[in-house]
Amino acid sequence: MVQDIPDGRKRVVIEGVRPEIDCGRFPIKRIVGERVQVEADIFCDGHDLVACRLLYRHADNSSWTEVPLRPLGNDRWAGEFVVTDLGAYRYTLEGWVDHFQTWRSDLQKRLEARQKVSVELLVGADLIEQAGKRASGSDARQLRNWAEILRTEEDYEHKVRLALADEVDDLVRRYPDRRLATRYGKELTVIVDRQRAGYGAWYELFPRSCADQPGRHGTFADVEARLPYLQEMGFDVLYLPPIHPIGKTHRKGKNNAPRAAADDVGSPWGIGSDDGGHMAIHPQLGTLADFRRLVERAEEHGLEIALDLALQCSPDHPYVREHPEWFRKRPDGSIQYAENPPKKYQDIYPLDFETPHWRELWHEIESIVRFWIDQGVRIFRVDNPHTKPFVFWEWLIRSIKADFPDVIFLSEAFTRPKVMYHLAKLGFSQSYTYFAWRNSKWELTSYFTELTQTDVREYFRPNLWPNTPDILTEYLQHGGRPAFMIRIVLAATLGASYGIYGPPFELCLNQPREPGSEEYLDSEKYQLWSWNLDHPDSLRDFIARLNRIRRQEPALQSDRWLAFHGVSNDQLLCYSKRTEDLKSVVLVVVNLDPQHTQSGWVDLPLHQLGIDGDRPYQVHDLLGGGRYVWHGPHNYVELNPHVLPAHVFRLRRRLRSEKDFEYYA
Amino acid sequence: MVQDIPDGRKRVVIEGVRPEIDCGRFPIKRIVGERVQVEADIFCDGHDLVACRLLYRHADNSSWTEVPLRPLGNDRWAGEFVVTDLGAYRYTLEGWVDHFQTWRSDLQKRLEARQKVSVELLVGADLIEQAGKRASGSDARQLRNWAEILRTEEDYEHKVRLALADEVDDLVRRYPDRRLATRYGKELTVIVDRQRAGYGAWYELFPRSCADQPGRHGTFADVEARLPYLQEMGFDVLYLPPIHPIGKTHRKGKNNAPRAAADDVGSPWGIGSDDGGHMAIHPQLGTLADFRRLVERAEEHGLEIALDLALQCSPDHPYVREHPEWFRKRPDGSIQYAENPPKKYQDIYPLDFETPHWRELWHEIESIVRFWIDQGVRIFRVDNPHTKPFVFWEWLIRSIKADFPDVIFLSEAFTRPKVMYHLAKLGFSQSYTYFAWRNSKWELTSYFTELTQTDVREYFRPNLWPNTPDILTEYLQHGGRPAFMIRIVLAATLGASYGIYGPPFELCLNQPREPGSEEYLDSEKYQLWSWNLDHPDSLRDFIARLNRIRRQEPALQSDRWLAFHGVSNDQLLCYSKRTEDLKSVVLVVVNLDPQHTQSGWVDLPLHQLGIDGDRPYQVHDLLGGGRYVWHGPHNYVELNPHVLPAHVFRLRRRLRSEKDFEYYA
Repeated sequence: MVQDIPDGRKRVVIEGVRPEIDCGRFPIKRIVGERVQVEADIFCDGHDLVACRLLYRHADNSSWTEVPLRPLGNDRWAGEFVVTDLGAYRYTLEGWVDHFQTWRSDLQKRLEARQKVSVELLVGADLIEQAGKRASGSDARQLRNWAEILRTEEDYEHKVRLALADEVDDLVRRYPDRRLATRYGKELTVIVDRQRAGYGAWYELFPRSCADQPGRHGTFADVEARLPYLQEMGFDVLYLPPIHPIGKTHRKGKNNAPRAAADDVGSPWGIGSDDGGHMAIHPQLGTLADFRRLVERAEEHGLEIALDLALQCSPDHPYVREHPEWFRKRPDGSIQYAENPPKKYQDIYPLDFETPHWRELWHEIESIVRFWIDQGVRIFRVDNPHTKPFVFWEWLIRSIKADFPDVIFLSEAFTRPKVMYHLAKLGFSQSYTYFAWRNSKWELTSYFTELTQTDVREYFRPNLWPNTPDILTEYLQHGGRPAFMIRIVLAATLGASYGIYGPPFELCLNQPREPGSEEYLDSEKYQLWSWNLDHPDSLRDFIARLNRIRRQEPALQSDRWLAFHGVSNDQLLCYSKRTEDLKSVVLVVVNLDPQHTQSGWVDLPLHQLGIDGDRPYQVHDLLGGGRYVWHGPHNYVELNPHVLPAHVFRLRRRLRSEKDFEYYA
Repeated sequence: MVQDIPDGRKRVVIEGVRPEIDCGRFPIKRIVGERVQVEADIFCDGHDLVACRLLYRHADNSSWTEVPLRPLGNDRWAGEFVVTDLGAYRYTLEGWVDHFQTWRSDLQKRLEARQKVSVELLVGADLIEQAGKRASGSDARQLRNWAEILRTEEDYEHKVRLALADEVDDLVRRYPDRRLATRYGKELTVIVDRQRAGYGAWYELFPRSCADQPGRHGTFADVEARLPYLQEMGFDVLYLPPIHPIGKTHRKGKNNAPRAAADDVGSPWGIGSDDGGHMAIHPQLGTLADFRRLVERAEEHGLEIALDLALQCSPDHPYVREHPEWFRKRPDGSIQYAENPPKKYQDIYPLDFETPHWRELWHEIESIVRFWIDQGVRIFRVDNPHTKPFVFWEWLIRSIKADFPDVIFLSEAFTRPKVMYHLAKLGFSQSYTYFAWRNSKWELTSYFTELTQTDVREYFRPNLWPNTPDILTEYLQHGGRPAFMIRIVLAATLGASYGIYGPPFELCLNQPREPGSEEYLDSEKYQLWSWNLDHPDSLRDFIARLNRIRRQEPALQSDRWLAFHGVSNDQLLCYSKRTEDLKSVVLVVVNLDPQHTQSGWVDLPLHQLGIDGDRPYQVHDLLGGGRYVWHGPHNYVELNPHVLPAHVFRLRRRLRSEKDFEYYA
């Protein structure tokens, strides 16, 4: 049995490594330029000192860069590195018994106890000589020379001084004896994305409703005309529902009616017709060339196009004819349509991922993604990813990102929490959240603490949507215009990534199909709309202001340093976001009650926010424009939702005083 | 890349498995007869139902036993098994998509919505027929028969009833389709020990101080004469400091004096002389035959002998001559003695585990353990295990327990928390703790919550010592006899395993070598003592009562269901222990103040303790003898430390009332 142990002299243990998701099964995620802070318990038997390092490399690079770790106490160590390139990084740890440092530290204790250290100096000479053997050139000569002095020099005091000299310490440290080092058993992975994967304001619209005349089917050209409007509001991503040909068989009518009228346009999610499938464009929207031009024009307006990846087919999809083996057959010979019993969706055929031909199916889907990448698309919003096998997504995302590490996948999965998190672990860059249904102070505080202050933050990047074409929440239905303001302030400041489905959002559309439903009345999903974007109640200016604040304040571009603060009123929510260096600190107070004015006292951890508690400080409301001088942690706030339901303060660390005046003192 | 994926149709995910220590790197521990409850997140994509099982087996057995898991909600599942044999068990999990249950559940929903299900009945017929193909004999025939009825029977209602019949469900469940099942990637290990590894009262004594006359060196025969005394007190384990020949070179004198007088007996931990080493017996104690007889006699008195495994040598140890390669040489040619700079222990040579000859050294130590096992010893208290490599202990314990799964190793490691826990993880059956230095309510509550209510309990079995030959705590030095009573009540009821170093403990010896020291004055470590065991202040009867309570109440024989309860006085500590079935429930209230009477109101979670809150209940003080009738969660307690500083109540669930009288009603 001893034969199985390669070297029983490896005395250092490395455990409790963080971050590490599911024993290293899944990567953590970072944005280019972010830090990875790694912690571990590292110790050895006995009283010897350990030395340890963090090792990291880009996956394309075969050699490790090493960073020393610093002790945090209780055998815990920490080190960090910054990721500078897209793609995958690896990191691991190494530790070893540092006999030289142990000897040096013991020598100091012996000398403090006024012990004679002649023999210990000879021990040190051996250790320094061994370091010399690991060195070369002048370093090796220097180390050999010092060892010789410690052995032969007659001046005892001189030898003692040399033994403890910093220059000896520095040079020996450069040639550690790592033959018996312990390497942590796993190489952990970081997936590094571009900034947009972690920060961005999204806008979803239906291209076909962008026409300038009611009743006309909108085109990509009409979307182009809409770009300045979106740019003014400060959005970063323009997400389009499926743009592919829409099936006719079992097409749904207005308000999801089981039968469509002759002129009904159908749901964009009923993909596929004689005009083609997932690699084709719905003819009424334009051509592939039109689409490519839209992508370019959007870019000129600071907007990136995100496409919908909805892996399902209408009965008219070419796959149904060409690849019947990718669909499930029922015993009566018909193809199995989508169901959630007792509900039936006869206009949709799900792909059968349990087909024996799953490999071909996977490759076909991969080719769809690659096709749109070739058209200039780098962001995919994935429809219902939780209804396709996890292993498929893990493979697909890895395969695409191996070639295109700048591609972003947003997971639309309002499903069970474990499923939602698992999709994030296996590779989705971002994910929809339960934000839409979290309204109370307790709900928001506990949910966003879980998302941003636990291990979840290492792999799950939230994207907050107050509404979607499927979700008009009760809060929005009943809270009037203030409710829309409240929810977008929360989305835009709690989430570095957020999105709205417009124009219904900025126009505060709040009529459900029927009471108790979250569906929009006369939903765009089934019919054309025409919008009066200049309506005086539109939130477009308010949204523009919010997005401007987000761009100005780096604090709002990450979720990592979100903290909730006490406030003496359950209808007021108070939180801050900051950059790690405290250069940008934003304090948000939101009145969650869309009906009534609410007031209370906030309780701020000033030190954490970089404020000197002994001096007054300025809070500047970037949303409302007001400037207030506060002093100490307790300050009064009052918010009338019919005027402005939130403060978004920038904190200025200190005010100028007479002491800043150059004649002072 | 798809080629790397064996089957993309495996849709079930298993993660978040507990218990699992360090990703399965280390085993959990159980006692024969205990339960292993396993939990995991198990789910699949989409809306299909999953089926899952817990698999377990004894390591000697190649085939798995399967247990169904029950859903806890939020995709969490749980199952359990009982370990019945010593040695190692393995457990893992398996889950698969249950198409038949999904179909059956959907069918019920369709029928509730009054849908026509003719085609669905054909789908069910296919699923039942497939189950039939996995079955054989009459089951196969029955399933085929049912499938045929669902296909051909004309009576629609009859078919519907058959499709939902329990007998169909039961039989199909027995033949699940597990071709695409997901097996959890790891086989996790449980080490199963005998009861003594988790529950026992230990007594440590110096055999040489057992003589009946002052000044005479005690022998194993004298220890035999002490056995009835120990049996009366109710101890289970008699632990002896090293019994090997004691070295003479640099032998320490009384009170650790640097030089021994001619008649000084030396420390038993200075092992090895001309008379032999770790496999020899100190001649003044007796012969190997005497030792074997002691082991037998102890057993007759219900006591098991535990030996000290102290892996270090006096300069006179035979190894120093025969195996100089197992020691570190200093540059002046001398052998490196033990040090903790600036302290020097010239009477001790540590073994050098970094020797190139480590393999031979490991085997030699293994042979020492096996030698004492051959003499009938099954418990080893390991001295300073934290100064030998972890990998060595892991190997040694595994190697010994492979042949002798009943052997128990107690780790004496009062070292840093991570180191202490790591020793437990790698195989030690039990461990010393920081109990000796945890005195206040907050300290005891937080420490014992950590030990018993977190993952620590899966691998770390505490053994609580209020004193040892090295530790006479300040609390004991200053608190008088009540302090000893308080500390042993805590040890014996907080810990299923506890021990005392006697007779100093029961005789309440509390003089330190000097102020500020935790060493005993005139410590037995360096000299002979003679004890008056009949001193009227001895705690022997008190200890006997405590150990009797421990044997009567299974609640005190495990640490798993320890819970602390509120009490309105910081000097009072209140906690309960119970068996899982609530048949034994013990409630302890201790006055932590050895000087003053303290009183307060306890606040009990009655439901958790199996008490009906609407009726009075009886608490019977097993220590003091009193019986009290309490009602509701709040009850008054008052404890005078000079009389009895603790209550150890047995809770009786209900009192008899007139309703129990047979003429009532």
